[in-house]
Amino acid sequence: MAECLFCKIRDGSIPAKIVYRDSECLGFEDIHPQAPTHVLFIPLTHISTVNELTGEDRERIGHLFMAAAKLAKERGHSEAGYRLVMNTNRDAGQTVFHIHLHLLGGRPFTWPPG
Amino acid sequence: MAECLFCKIRDGSIPAKIVYRDSECLGFEDIHPQAPTHVLFIPLTHISTVNELTGEDRERIGHLFMAAAKLAKERGHSEAGYRLVMNTNRDAGQTVFHIHLHLLGGRPFTWPPG
Repeated sequence: MAECLFCKIRDGSIPAKIVYRDSECLGFEDIHPQAPTHVLFIPLTHISTVNELTGEDRERIGHLFMAAAKLAKERGHSEAGYRLVMNTNRDAGQTVFHIHLHLLGGRPFTWPPG
Repeated sequence: MAECLFCKIRDGSIPAKIVYRDSECLGFEDIHPQAPTHVLFIPLTHISTVNELTGEDRERIGHLFMAAAKLAKERGHSEAGYRLVMNTNRDAGQTVFHIHLHLLGGRPFTWPPG
């Protein structure tokens, strides 16, 4: 997707503070962090929203969770806890249409989640 | 897990308003809804927290997303949007230690997500 911001970050044509990378996904700091740890995990494959997921993508999604848990552990959040969030479209405030899992950790989170 | 509330809901020994069911997961109404649609999706397999996920669980997690997207579509939230949230441990407010994906839809959601 030539015009996708996160594809450009994946390809290195737009800079980001990358904190996690493996063969299937990438993790980078949110530019407007809402917690001491606020990292976005994206699949390397472009998928616009959760509405577009197919059966083939199931492992990709699970993989984002595994990666987030790994980084949460490295940063010492596993025991105290962390919140994982994925937004779809306008009501949820999705602004970049390449799915991304928010990892938020390092402080207590209130309820409801927005 | 004999003492797990969500395993009991899965097994039918504790009632819940079940709104989605397939061979891998179950979706039921949150008893303290925070939005017009607030449904919890659980894997049939007991997993305590995201910290305990293994590679084998990747499809299970992705499957929860597919199920949530399907219900969101049925309820007319696909286009306007919806938020998916999974909490781990105390800081995030996890109260039942059987992983569950919150599907919240039917209203706008603010940021940060708690």
